[in-house]
Amino acid sequence: MKLSEEQLQQFDELGYVMLPDLFDPAEIAAVTADLPRIYAMDRPEVWRESTGVVRTAFAAHHYSEPFALIGKHPRLVEPVKQLLGGDVYIHQYKINAKAAFDGDVWQWHQDYGTWARDDAMPEPRAMNIALFLDDVTEFNGPLWIMPGSHKQGVFEAGHDLATTSYPLWTLDKQTIAELANTHGIFSAKGRAGSVLMFHSNIVHASSPNIGPWGRTIVYLSLCHVDNHIRQFKREEWIAHRDFTPVQSAPDDCLKSYAAGQVAAE
Amino acid sequence: MKLSEEQLQQFDELGYVMLPDLFDPAEIAAVTADLPRIYAMDRPEVWRESTGVVRTAFAAHHYSEPFALIGKHPRLVEPVKQLLGGDVYIHQYKINAKAAFDGDVWQWHQDYGTWARDDAMPEPRAMNIALFLDDVTEFNGPLWIMPGSHKQGVFEAGHDLATTSYPLWTLDKQTIAELANTHGIFSAKGRAGSVLMFHSNIVHASSPNIGPWGRTIVYLSLCHVDNHIRQFKREEWIAHRDFTPVQSAPDDCLKSYAAGQVAAE
Repeated sequence: MKLSEEQLQQFDELGYVMLPDLFDPAEIAAVTADLPRIYAMDRPEVWRESTGVVRTAFAAHHYSEPFALIGKHPRLVEPVKQLLGGDVYIHQYKINAKAAFDGDVWQWHQDYGTWARDDAMPEPRAMNIALFLDDVTEFNGPLWIMPGSHKQGVFEAGHDLATTSYPLWTLDKQTIAELANTHGIFSAKGRAGSVLMFHSNIVHASSPNIGPWGRTIVYLSLCHVDNHIRQFKREEWIAHRDFTPVQSAPDDCLKSYAAGQVAAE
Repeated sequence: MKLSEEQLQQFDELGYVMLPDLFDPAEIAAVTADLPRIYAMDRPEVWRESTGVVRTAFAAHHYSEPFALIGKHPRLVEPVKQLLGGDVYIHQYKINAKAAFDGDVWQWHQDYGTWARDDAMPEPRAMNIALFLDDVTEFNGPLWIMPGSHKQGVFEAGHDLATTSYPLWTLDKQTIAELANTHGIFSAKGRAGSVLMFHSNIVHASSPNIGPWGRTIVYLSLCHVDNHIRQFKREEWIAHRDFTPVQSAPDDCLKSYAAGQVAAE
């Protein structure tokens, strides 16, 4: 449940760590089984692309039992507590669907840029841990990150309200070109069950998904409890206002949940 | 200048052949040096994305000396003559720019589907040979093709006038999903100077380019002279009406051209 010295060093230098196959297929199946129910929901947390397919289901830990377990799973929460140095709360919880054919672009941005500007989060003592619910390949819009770009603080950004259905503070082309030519781009691919941890200041983006394979990733944005947001401009289900420390569930919580589902059938 | 038995067999089975590094950097530089002049042209052949950047420069062999040499280069023309079994003419000549940040999607389609429907080309005795003018990577919208999909003839298609600035006969999602699950997808990547040959019935697409690196590919669509188009609905500079057989230039034509350019400076 803890990162190794080598992983800590990589995170510091490059701003990300991949943890391949951290969850097994049975655990992933227990979670994805609830997706059709969630995607069919007509509620504001379930945000749609301009074509109508789901782009993001926010705060699914509030209305889904397996996704609630993901939100306190020790394999996700403990490494973040280790990196941030203490208790954390859930600042944001997203299921990003990136549907086959229709999943739209996520423009180049930094997450902390948005959290600072929109939510008045004091420092970048918060970060994402992303769990792949599908195999992520070059063909379904993987996350592209610029290794090392987290070392340069928050870049200037513009509030892009036009490109997609979701408003985002995005970086300009010249900055992206300079960063890419300096740092290159890492494409975060891996089997379902793999996990990517990345620094909240790392610059990243992802292409539209024009292929026939969906690409669902759960993003758990955890923030040190002392570093909670100060401004409540966005919906509560986008930027949470409950700063209660996450208590990790048992490591086998998804297995137990799945066994309970089978028993109930 | 001729494909090997192994390459012919691969083309038959998979519908494509990659020829890595077929042109050297000096030859590519001689050609790309003329791109800024072409992209700045205000003429109908230079088709723009909705953002204004160039999407495709059609028929550049008519207004660019180095691109005219590409249009009759023996390393491109002779393998196609070999595959199509005789003399060929240029049915279409495209420089597809796929500009950094703004290069838009090419939806899933078959080229012969368009040539048959729009131009009344009798048979798929025509094909593309694509020359990479930039390094093509996973980060700048490479061509994705479905190996073996050329064996199933022309699929039903709809005329998509909305997605991009360029009308295209595109396949439906169910067909694409079935083909991808059967055949998989091949991403045609390679250094500048590499060449991809592909069957006119192969199903292919390419993602938008959200990255900071441009991706220019020249597509030479060559048709057997006996198989020339019968219907002249599209502009002459999109679907040519001059069925004169291409006469291959000398193999060193780009080197000679470059030497002449240097001498003239």
